Amino acid sequence: MKYLFFLTMTLFAAPGFAGNHPTHEDVARRLLSAGMKDGEAYSLLKELTTEAPHRLSGSKGAEIAVQVTARQMTQRGFANVHTESVVVPRWVRGLVERAQVMTSGDAPPLDLSVCALGRSIGTAKGGIIAGVVEVHSFEELKALGEKAKGKIIFYNRPMDPELPNTFAAYVGAVDQRSRGAIEAAKAGGVAAIVRSMTLALDDVPHTGAMGYQDSVPEVPAAAISTIGANTVSHILAEDPESQVTLELSCETMPDVESANVVGELRGSERPNEIIVVGGHLDAWDKGSGAHDDGSGCVQAIEVLNLLKKAGITPKRTIRAVMFMNEENGTRGARAYPVAPERKGEVHIAAIESDRGGFAPRGISVQGDSTVVERVKTWQPLFELLNAGRIEEGYGGVDIQPLASQGVPAFGLDPENHRYFDYHHSDNDTIDKVNPRELQMGAIVEALLCYLISEDGL
Amino acid sequence: MKYLFFLTMTLFAAPGFAGNHPTHEDVARRLLSAGMKDGEAYSLLKELTTEAPHRLSGSKGAEIAVQVTARQMTQRGFANVHTESVVVPRWVRGLVERAQVMTSGDAPPLDLSVCALGRSIGTAKGGIIAGVVEVHSFEELKALGEKAKGKIIFYNRPMDPELPNTFAAYVGAVDQRSRGAIEAAKAGGVAAIVRSMTLALDDVPHTGAMGYQDSVPEVPAAAISTIGANTVSHILAEDPESQVTLELSCETMPDVESANVVGELRGSERPNEIIVVGGHLDAWDKGSGAHDDGSGCVQAIEVLNLLKKAGITPKRTIRAVMFMNEENGTRGARAYPVAPERKGEVHIAAIESDRGGFAPRGISVQGDSTVVERVKTWQPLFELLNAGRIEEGYGGVDIQPLASQGVPAFGLDPENHRYFDYHHSDNDTIDKVNPRELQMGAIVEALLCYLISEDGL
Repeated sequence: MKYLFFLTMTLFAAPGFAGNHPTHEDVARRLLSAGMKDGEAYSLLKELTTEAPHRLSGSKGAEIAVQVTARQMTQRGFANVHTESVVVPRWVRGLVERAQVMTSGDAPPLDLSVCALGRSIGTAKGGIIAGVVEVHSFEELKALGEKAKGKIIFYNRPMDPELPNTFAAYVGAVDQRSRGAIEAAKAGGVAAIVRSMTLALDDVPHTGAMGYQDSVPEVPAAAISTIGANTVSHILAEDPESQVTLELSCETMPDVESANVVGELRGSERPNEIIVVGGHLDAWDKGSGAHDDGSGCVQAIEVLNLLKKAGITPKRTIRAVMFMNEENGTRGARAYPVAPERKGEVHIAAIESDRGGFAPRGISVQGDSTVVERVKTWQPLFELLNAGRIEEGYGGVDIQPLASQGVPAFGLDPENHRYFDYHHSDNDTIDKVNPRELQMGAIVEALLCYLISEDGL
Repeated sequence: MKYLFFLTMTLFAAPGFAGNHPTHEDVARRLLSAGMKDGEAYSLLKELTTEAPHRLSGSKGAEIAVQVTARQMTQRGFANVHTESVVVPRWVRGLVERAQVMTSGDAPPLDLSVCALGRSIGTAKGGIIAGVVEVHSFEELKALGEKAKGKIIFYNRPMDPELPNTFAAYVGAVDQRSRGAIEAAKAGGVAAIVRSMTLALDDVPHTGAMGYQDSVPEVPAAAISTIGANTVSHILAEDPESQVTLELSCETMPDVESANVVGELRGSERPNEIIVVGGHLDAWDKGSGAHDDGSGCVQAIEVLNLLKKAGITPKRTIRAVMFMNEENGTRGARAYPVAPERKGEVHIAAIESDRGGFAPRGISVQGDSTVVERVKTWQPLFELLNAGRIEEGYGGVDIQPLASQGVPAFGLDPENHRYFDYHHSDNDTIDKVNPRELQMGAIVEALLCYLISEDGL
């Protein structure tokens, strides 16, 4: 093995392919080799999640995360490493998060594991104490009429476990979190409590974005764990007069300046044609955002790193972008295409990894049929990486502003059974990330960048 | 959702499909529904790994595992639940496992995490103390000539991290474990120490089967962790005169009687045509064999359970088989086809899950091209389960005796990046198994059983 390794290095290690131009398959194998032998995705993630575990937009942690990723790119010799200013919202959780359920008898109150939803207003000191109604849809809520008035609205429709794709299950349930407070207020409710968006049955609450609507009163909104949701449901079934106390100290502060972080491998032939590969740098202030989306960020950095290590000078510019503020505003995503730095640039593709650092199964392609067919011709190359599932689908949140300008968008498509077990919660920590799986995702993205850079779309 | 659920149950829950015969797609969706709503694979695994965590062939734990799985099948109303006698080897680890490395200077000895390889002889009390030579292949060992004599042979060729498929990496390295003692003895060595068969860098040793050869002296063999292997390698590089102490109290006892465990859904039209779905019930006495192969066993039980719950009476008999003694003898696998119970039976397919309870990606088909093409026609149905990768490949160890008689064999093919992180070690515990992923594997196997039962091959 040692000798074989030496031989391999001798034959192939000349940077820039001084000899014959390599075939696409050569490049796929070289990226695999560079990635699996000396891959840095996991150590990059360890740095990020250790130095900036909490990096919600506008926080000190987000500021540190900007510095960490800029440093990681500079240290690896990327070109044009810089930040691009983005003004972001600043929501802070505060110190108090408390929920208790009290039956109408004299049993002591039961503490619930709870967390405020992102953007929620806080409660008055001492909290809200009110009766509770459990609903499973906005229709059910509306049908309650007067019965919802003055109540805490408890949304308890689970993610559908029967859907093999957990993202579909998430999409089918997340309206309760995102619009729950609006619909609660419209129905005369005083707060919204939502069953956490996860398929796991545990006592960990999952946060996430919610919103308000002009002309509808703002009421506080929080998530309770799935075990807590089941408990409240049982209690309500036995004792509908039970009450809940909800106290939250979260608040929205004035906007602050933050940044997207950018680094590049400059294209040798068409430097103004840009291929973006990115993730979002902000994360909820729960866990350390290891899967969501520390993984996508470090994979983007590792893409450039791998291409450099493999001695590849791309024809077009391959650019890693750490987008700020995906979770509660997408300001970074929207700022990027209109930043002054974009002048004279043409974007030919945008790739995002924002579905966790799990084993990649393929790529979802958001583009016209020509693009989809084009990428499918590369399918055997991705099959070498065990990631040959090329399907029409969604790119990613941060690259939608580019996609809406007609830029073909690509989403790394990993295994997803476990994603929502961790998502937006204290469970989302680096011990849930497997180094090989994370690294393989970076290799898949690197290959896609190379192929687009080399052949266009 | 509640109402939708009620409606679905009303429309579809009639056992035996009293109405129109369902399409294959209907059945796929019903298995998915039954499996994801009320799946029992994980709770079956919890029972097995709690009641019989250590169940190496011939042990008390193996005896309990036979009882547990027979009870699980009986409780679920399977037909013809019984055990079939198998005489198995009985190797016991004993209490002493100790390895230390001592430099030639006066530094204190360094303890290494170590475990005997299965079937190894023990050392004399007090252990073997000898110099060490590190090699990476049998060729390198042979080239050492006299230098290997009287030494402990240290095999340190890692599994190749560049192979996307970790099973290929395992196959490429495992000769060191399986034949290391034989080659060590041939070279005049006094013991073999092997780098653990894992891609993870940690301090956990991984056991596994090794063998001896007639006319070659038997020497003890043990595995050290990957961290330990790196440490020994560094120490030897600096101080080639370093010695290792190896003490093992393992021994092989007389053979004992054990059993395969069988349960069925009887075929309504062709009961003597059998489709086997199985795993192996024995496991190494490390961890609790949750992935290897508790998962495969409980998935086989869950296959029958799901078909029953979905109201399916198969045309052919679908039989769950828990094979005994895969790890160190394959006696159960070899006993099954020649057991007296086989009289009058025709086996038309055999399916095994023995690659861990991870998210299924598809099925590997070990059969002639007609069979492969036949199964590929079902690909869209498996795609509904996100497991549409149908490829020619290997069935599984326990179904090879059937395959060698021409029975088409099928292996459940899950994600494999993490498998060898856990395999044969204290890491292989149920917390490493995701309930959804485990359950989805059972659903895939259930669908395959149904399709073969319904349409033949």
